[in-house]
Amino acid sequence: MMDVPLTTRTLIDRCLHLHPERPVTSLLIAGKNEAGQPVPGTHRSTLGEAAARAGQLAGALKDAGVAQGDRVATLAVNSSSHLEAYLGVSSMGAVIHTLNIRLPVEQLVWIINDAQDRVLLLDPMFLPMLPAFQANCPSIERYVVFGRDGAAPEGTQAYEAFIAGQPATFDWPDLDERSGAMLCYTSGTTGNPKGVLYTHRSLMLHALAGGHKSAFDIGEEDTVLPIVPMFHANAWGTVHCAALYGAGLVFTGVFNDGPTVARMLEQEKVTMCAGVVTVMLALLAELDRAGEAGQPYDLSHLNLIGCGGTAVPEALIRALHFRHGLRMMQAWGMTETSPLATTSNAPVGVDPASDEGFTHRSKQGRVMPFTEVDLIDDEGADVPHDGQTMGRLLVRGPWVTGEYYRRGVTGDFVTRRGKRWLDTGDIATLSPGGEVWVQDRAKDLVKSGGEWISSAEIENALMAHPHVAAAVVVAVPHEKWTERPLALVIPRGEAPKPEDLRAHLQGRVAKWWIPDDFVMVESLPIGATGKFLKREIRDQYRNHAWPAAGAGTG
Amino acid sequence: MMDVPLTTRTLIDRCLHLHPERPVTSLLIAGKNEAGQPVPGTHRSTLGEAAARAGQLAGALKDAGVAQGDRVATLAVNSSSHLEAYLGVSSMGAVIHTLNIRLPVEQLVWIINDAQDRVLLLDPMFLPMLPAFQANCPSIERYVVFGRDGAAPEGTQAYEAFIAGQPATFDWPDLDERSGAMLCYTSGTTGNPKGVLYTHRSLMLHALAGGHKSAFDIGEEDTVLPIVPMFHANAWGTVHCAALYGAGLVFTGVFNDGPTVARMLEQEKVTMCAGVVTVMLALLAELDRAGEAGQPYDLSHLNLIGCGGTAVPEALIRALHFRHGLRMMQAWGMTETSPLATTSNAPVGVDPASDEGFTHRSKQGRVMPFTEVDLIDDEGADVPHDGQTMGRLLVRGPWVTGEYYRRGVTGDFVTRRGKRWLDTGDIATLSPGGEVWVQDRAKDLVKSGGEWISSAEIENALMAHPHVAAAVVVAVPHEKWTERPLALVIPRGEAPKPEDLRAHLQGRVAKWWIPDDFVMVESLPIGATGKFLKREIRDQYRNHAWPAAGAGTG
Repeated sequence: MMDVPLTTRTLIDRCLHLHPERPVTSLLIAGKNEAGQPVPGTHRSTLGEAAARAGQLAGALKDAGVAQGDRVATLAVNSSSHLEAYLGVSSMGAVIHTLNIRLPVEQLVWIINDAQDRVLLLDPMFLPMLPAFQANCPSIERYVVFGRDGAAPEGTQAYEAFIAGQPATFDWPDLDERSGAMLCYTSGTTGNPKGVLYTHRSLMLHALAGGHKSAFDIGEEDTVLPIVPMFHANAWGTVHCAALYGAGLVFTGVFNDGPTVARMLEQEKVTMCAGVVTVMLALLAELDRAGEAGQPYDLSHLNLIGCGGTAVPEALIRALHFRHGLRMMQAWGMTETSPLATTSNAPVGVDPASDEGFTHRSKQGRVMPFTEVDLIDDEGADVPHDGQTMGRLLVRGPWVTGEYYRRGVTGDFVTRRGKRWLDTGDIATLSPGGEVWVQDRAKDLVKSGGEWISSAEIENALMAHPHVAAAVVVAVPHEKWTERPLALVIPRGEAPKPEDLRAHLQGRVAKWWIPDDFVMVESLPIGATGKFLKREIRDQYRNHAWPAAGAGTG
Repeated sequence: MMDVPLTTRTLIDRCLHLHPERPVTSLLIAGKNEAGQPVPGTHRSTLGEAAARAGQLAGALKDAGVAQGDRVATLAVNSSSHLEAYLGVSSMGAVIHTLNIRLPVEQLVWIINDAQDRVLLLDPMFLPMLPAFQANCPSIERYVVFGRDGAAPEGTQAYEAFIAGQPATFDWPDLDERSGAMLCYTSGTTGNPKGVLYTHRSLMLHALAGGHKSAFDIGEEDTVLPIVPMFHANAWGTVHCAALYGAGLVFTGVFNDGPTVARMLEQEKVTMCAGVVTVMLALLAELDRAGEAGQPYDLSHLNLIGCGGTAVPEALIRALHFRHGLRMMQAWGMTETSPLATTSNAPVGVDPASDEGFTHRSKQGRVMPFTEVDLIDDEGADVPHDGQTMGRLLVRGPWVTGEYYRRGVTGDFVTRRGKRWLDTGDIATLSPGGEVWVQDRAKDLVKSGGEWISSAEIENALMAHPHVAAAVVVAVPHEKWTERPLALVIPRGEAPKPEDLRAHLQGRVAKWWIPDDFVMVESLPIGATGKFLKREIRDQYRNHAWPAAGAGTG
């Protein structure tokens, strides 16, 4: 067979020649309202224009001395400009390094210095961080500011001026499919962030598999709205899938609130969107509100909502199905897995809208092609795939990283029977039919009386209560049992009483798993990737005074 | 990223663990009726059983001395046994060589000797050829006869006895994804047949891409009936797709007549089937017959009919749509391209059931991911992609062969700008939007007065006539114009008159393309891969007496 490498160059060709007219719609910041809040303006482009401008960007970067393997960083929300960087930087042989805009500037500085980025493409809203970068990031030779208005402060260049005059037809080089194409750092709740270098091969295999109907089901007839940020694990591959198969794209930029997302889903006839649980809870709240107000959104085009990042509550999947006729599919993965490792569909023969179907769909699902999972205990011994026994979840596959950037093979990897696996840090069960059920992050498990309690499973059960909008369960030190679970609950409507929640959990989780206390809160801290910050919550409640009634196991 | 190779081993794992219960239904020969015709019997198995028995087969082959890279040939129709060979032979590192059962025994002997096959797995019906193989094919050390009854003549072994006692859990080796996995010889209308060696990488990339909804749209919820033989370009990849994604499979064995296929489509609730034009014309005739008899088949589960091998008549696509509510998608490719190179879907925004939609769908469509096409003239110069100018169609991609087995880089390949392309032997146009329109095989073009006439386009137009069941147009020598087109027509119902057909073609093809004569025939010869044998027809009519009225260009 011909030795044709799998590279992102194919995206350029397909966008330019097969799907040039497919729309790319971006919400940009058009100005500010009286309250000083950004006001959206719609920018319309196409896949063909994005690919042509990607060629211009590649020409400008080459003229600026960017060579194969060099890192070009982005600090940007989702937009057509970010898409141009996705297509152009990797296809010219450089590495696009997507910085997480939600990180504090000190961490960004650390990451930029670790990655030795040579160019930074950034949205204007992040210009306040410029002095910190200029003072602390000597590797960056050039700052290029996205934005159609051409503004660029001292020491920076406007993106439009940077690419102006370059031909759209860049002389794309032949690349090794195993060379680096993208770089993303994990948010690193412990220790310093770690970089994951995606190769052309891994990205393109992920896109091939991700477009299948068992995964994100993306084709030319689709319009995709990745609410998940393009700086977060490649927007879960949705952008590459869209460019490969010719789907339209909708980018909401900074406007990711429930009402704006709902409006764009309706207005742009979006067929597929993807985002983390917290974003989808906000979307559900807006759909509920509109429905109750007698002005429901028309989302009849929306075939699939991809959701992940943390375990997806069954109640959320059910609510979207029964209240709004929408299909949510859970996917599991991590920055290290590109990220799609499993997708969760009811097995054939099981009605997806039956109780059994929802039970399946609330688990993390079955592996993608060429991906394998396994379980070990803390001593590295095999754990049975019986759907019952918890173990540390291992994963391997052609789009799973085998090392960290510049750090090599760290303690996050284990070698078993001659093969390297990534230890995900998740605790899971694995059914004989290959269904992964993540019980918890290893560090979030509650260790009570020598046994493990899955905080995720309790949270899932709590969120099935009609008056629970969100719930987080954390371990709190306990004199007798070492740790016991504490539930923090954001109420939906009238606040539920602890005894109601206790009764609700009876039969849904093991009796001794029922939290010893339930605290109503107005909000909970959310981290840089949209997940609840369990470590912070645990720290905040570590001296929680247990109710007098005595702990849990009764 | 981890260096995880793409090998067929993944099919074994997924069939065993993720999709073990998915059904595999085979029509076997249960006996003969009074007329001596074979009578079908239904054999039911599963993907899990097939994968387990593939492990047994691998064990038996290993014990028989088959090593990595050795060729294990099959001479068999579609069945669960053939599936076991697909899964087991390649995953153990050997090469499964699928012999075309329709070839004369002399050609099979030549091919076996060229491939140096060590084992031959064959259906009992081909035992009459055994003496010829035994006398002329010294490389074959072992003949293994498929069949549940355990019969095996002198010098052969029964398949069931061969694999009996072997464990289902073969110790599958780690393989290089670029090593050979399957071998298929082209039918070779000129010269000796040429072998195409598929690698694990090419087969698995083809399966990943082939399952997408822009191609064969195969997932766990599907049941696939490959009417296309498993010896013909890997059954177009449908079998690998099904094993990868967990679709059920239906094999009709020798029973590929319209009524049996239609009955199995209905009975097994098939969602996707695939076959060549001649087979689909027979299926259409049966659906028409049943409908007219007031006993239509219930094919409400059938979402997609894949068709290819030769240009698909627009009239066939329309008839299936309008008369039976069925969607036919044309795909183009060859043995050398695994075979999917293009798939033909109406571009987004065009109603597939509109005149414009059918026009698009009657062309060969747009390239699969990572596949490229181009056009050159006879001197190797660029031909514009204007949708008008004909040129020789070139193709390249990761599942396009770059050489022939044991023959290397023959004259079928051209190097342009440092890259190797396969010259397909097809004459085509290429639209600016990337749509391939095959006009003819280069050798089937009619050269009239220094210009090219596309026989395929005339055939397509003829078959839109209500009283034409099939049409073949060939070049016949002509004193003045060098060659002129002659049409051979199989009538549907009342035979049309030449002047009716001439009138019908007015406006549908260029005036000077209209054949100079129309001959009604009862049948036309069909070759080993189900295509009309144009060379034979041309030879038969090369002395055709033109009607007195004088030739064509008037």
